[in-house]
Amino acid sequence: MKDLDLGILFFLQMAIITLACRVVGRLGRYIGQTQVVMEMVTGVLLGPSLFGLLLPQYQAALFPQKYPLVLDGVTHEVRHPSMQILYIIAQLGLVLYMFLVGVEFDVNLIKKRVGSAVLVSVSGVLVPLILGIAFGFFLHSQATVGTSVYFGPNVSSVNAALFMGASMCITAFPMLARIIMESGLARTTMGTLALGAGATDDAIAWSLLAVVLAVEEGSPQIAFLAIGGGLAFGILMMTVGKRLLNRIVIKEKEEISAAQFGVVAIALLISAWFTDFIGIYAVFGAFIAGAAMPRGPLSNQVRDKIHTLVTVVLLPVFFVYSGLNTKLSLVNTPTLWIVTLVICLIAIVGKGVACTLAARAGGEGWREAWAIGTLMNARGLMELIMLNIGLQAGIITPTLFTMMIIMAVVTTLMTSPLYRWIYGRHTVAAAASPVAN
Amino acid sequence: MKDLDLGILFFLQMAIITLACRVVGRLGRYIGQTQVVMEMVTGVLLGPSLFGLLLPQYQAALFPQKYPLVLDGVTHEVRHPSMQILYIIAQLGLVLYMFLVGVEFDVNLIKKRVGSAVLVSVSGVLVPLILGIAFGFFLHSQATVGTSVYFGPNVSSVNAALFMGASMCITAFPMLARIIMESGLARTTMGTLALGAGATDDAIAWSLLAVVLAVEEGSPQIAFLAIGGGLAFGILMMTVGKRLLNRIVIKEKEEISAAQFGVVAIALLISAWFTDFIGIYAVFGAFIAGAAMPRGPLSNQVRDKIHTLVTVVLLPVFFVYSGLNTKLSLVNTPTLWIVTLVICLIAIVGKGVACTLAARAGGEGWREAWAIGTLMNARGLMELIMLNIGLQAGIITPTLFTMMIIMAVVTTLMTSPLYRWIYGRHTVAAAASPVAN
Repeated sequence: MKDLDLGILFFLQMAIITLACRVVGRLGRYIGQTQVVMEMVTGVLLGPSLFGLLLPQYQAALFPQKYPLVLDGVTHEVRHPSMQILYIIAQLGLVLYMFLVGVEFDVNLIKKRVGSAVLVSVSGVLVPLILGIAFGFFLHSQATVGTSVYFGPNVSSVNAALFMGASMCITAFPMLARIIMESGLARTTMGTLALGAGATDDAIAWSLLAVVLAVEEGSPQIAFLAIGGGLAFGILMMTVGKRLLNRIVIKEKEEISAAQFGVVAIALLISAWFTDFIGIYAVFGAFIAGAAMPRGPLSNQVRDKIHTLVTVVLLPVFFVYSGLNTKLSLVNTPTLWIVTLVICLIAIVGKGVACTLAARAGGEGWREAWAIGTLMNARGLMELIMLNIGLQAGIITPTLFTMMIIMAVVTTLMTSPLYRWIYGRHTVAAAASPVAN
Repeated sequence: MKDLDLGILFFLQMAIITLACRVVGRLGRYIGQTQVVMEMVTGVLLGPSLFGLLLPQYQAALFPQKYPLVLDGVTHEVRHPSMQILYIIAQLGLVLYMFLVGVEFDVNLIKKRVGSAVLVSVSGVLVPLILGIAFGFFLHSQATVGTSVYFGPNVSSVNAALFMGASMCITAFPMLARIIMESGLARTTMGTLALGAGATDDAIAWSLLAVVLAVEEGSPQIAFLAIGGGLAFGILMMTVGKRLLNRIVIKEKEEISAAQFGVVAIALLISAWFTDFIGIYAVFGAFIAGAAMPRGPLSNQVRDKIHTLVTVVLLPVFFVYSGLNTKLSLVNTPTLWIVTLVICLIAIVGKGVACTLAARAGGEGWREAWAIGTLMNARGLMELIMLNIGLQAGIITPTLFTMMIIMAVVTTLMTSPLYRWIYGRHTVAAAASPVAN
């Protein structure tokens, strides 16, 4: 395909993706939903599940999957190059976004209340993990003559179960953090508890994913590279990297220079490359690079300089890329719908209800406990990232991917209205309309 | 190629491109050069002309051109997908950058002195145009048995000559504007004169390119679509589009919302798509979208929110993409080097000297006249854009492309030291180190 034609298609895709996300996001406000969950929904709507169902020709023209490549007079159907371009733009958006999440990740806030967060964290991980693993084993055993509807052909039952467990443990940490910050709850017991528990749970879930990916690679060397390299990278970044980045600190009201921004960008890109290279995906490196940034005017300015372009233009591409892989038509039997329902129930009971009970047992009032449970229950963008990695690594099939996407959307859609209903009257106005991401 | 591997390569490329541009840019400061010209040089250095010459294996690993695609057991050598990705990222960077140029383009500043700018403008276009056209005809006539070293196989002599003419007329308008603004000369006679003349010349050169591209397309309908569509788009954007964009104006100190930024982004993306679609390239649409933006707090904030990421991370990809196509080894005979020298001479005499004489004839002092001539002479990024379009449209060969790139680099490298020498002592300190783009 000629570069020029690819460029024309690219700008059209970007225009329509941005437009659709803004319009659906605006509509979502009327039903009290956050921008981010509406963008998750937009992704699904622009994919084969709605746009492709209603206007298949237009959908195929805008997001073509196959390209007729002519070689030596013979036409071969290959993957359309525009899919790879959307993938890379989505990766760039994700990496910049996860960097921002890392920048806003305040370790000190969590350190303060490690003790009381432990109970919620442990329940927030253990219950969904055990339920997820058990259900994963069950689903894996449903394979007939070797081919599973749910998992890739060579995925072992242990790995399948671990992946299901990890993806049940996910918390939409950035969304949770945003709601808590905007509600002015960051310094309250409840806020700190939820933040600490959310961060711990996500860290555990992602570590589990790293193990699953490493095991999936087969060879012990690769697994060692992923886990050892990831740990070494994290430690190095949070010590040496942090100290080096601290050197480019600027004063209040000083403008960040292009050279300083360049240092930050290079650190971020190298981190993304390295973690991608060792097999634990670029998003990890980006998050750690963000967490290693010195706090203060520098990181505030870096955030101001990339946040808007990333959230309005680049990140929506990830939602749409994910939505293009979401095929509701694959969930086409009563059994599959029952399984989807069970997945949603396990997700909600295992995470939301368990966290609520743990918070209550830890001494919170019922209202606070339910609020914490509701916030912990949202899967959001984090779950989408994990599912896309699982799909790409061949661990889950497009069918299970779609079912898990439904769970992610349902749990995220629940959060804002539930939280407002449970806790909205007890907090500042900002909480009622979190711009959450 | 697997998406994951493409992602790994992409982040490595981005990290090295950003790093190289920062390092070379920093070195350039010691010799009084601007960041932008050093990035042009970096692009050439990372291509086959230096990196590929010294470390061919590493260069091929970092910027692979060919990919062995296996289809039905047979291996085909196809273009490497990472090249298309770099192309799209470069396009995205260019489009965002040209939008910023459009935002900073102040029509009012030029309107004021239309009269006195006419003489410089006319000389600034006519002399290089005539010399370029004449030399273009000469080069086209050098073809032996139908294959030209300089032009594509089906390019007519008129079109070849017009392209050469247009590319000689180019002024690095953004760089000129930046130097004039930062020297505090914007409101002086000389500043306004240079700005007015630079803008007019660039407008004429780009219109000529649009004609060349339209003619190259062959059919009158396509030519009509390009020229008519382009004119209609420009008029529509500067009337209806401008009025619509004026609605989202914000007050001083108000923060731009995601929704407002979304409107701007959608307008920009649609403009880029439309002008790309009608055959006059996305950069035109992006520039016009920028020029149609309401001036004031809104456009200032939009600029603040994209400028740094674009200039530090995305735009360097364009320089490198362009550098990958620049093969100094193609200029491998004494004849070709003599032709390169003549091209440089025509560029400098036709533009720099002619503008100086015209400014002097228009009543400026010799020092001011030489300063204007020097500024008008820089080709900068604008020339690179035009040359890449010419190469991609098959108008010029990689050989002539490389020779013209040398001219663009030489005229741009000359500017800062010459300008400082001629006029530096008469202006504020800022002029000595323009951060020019």
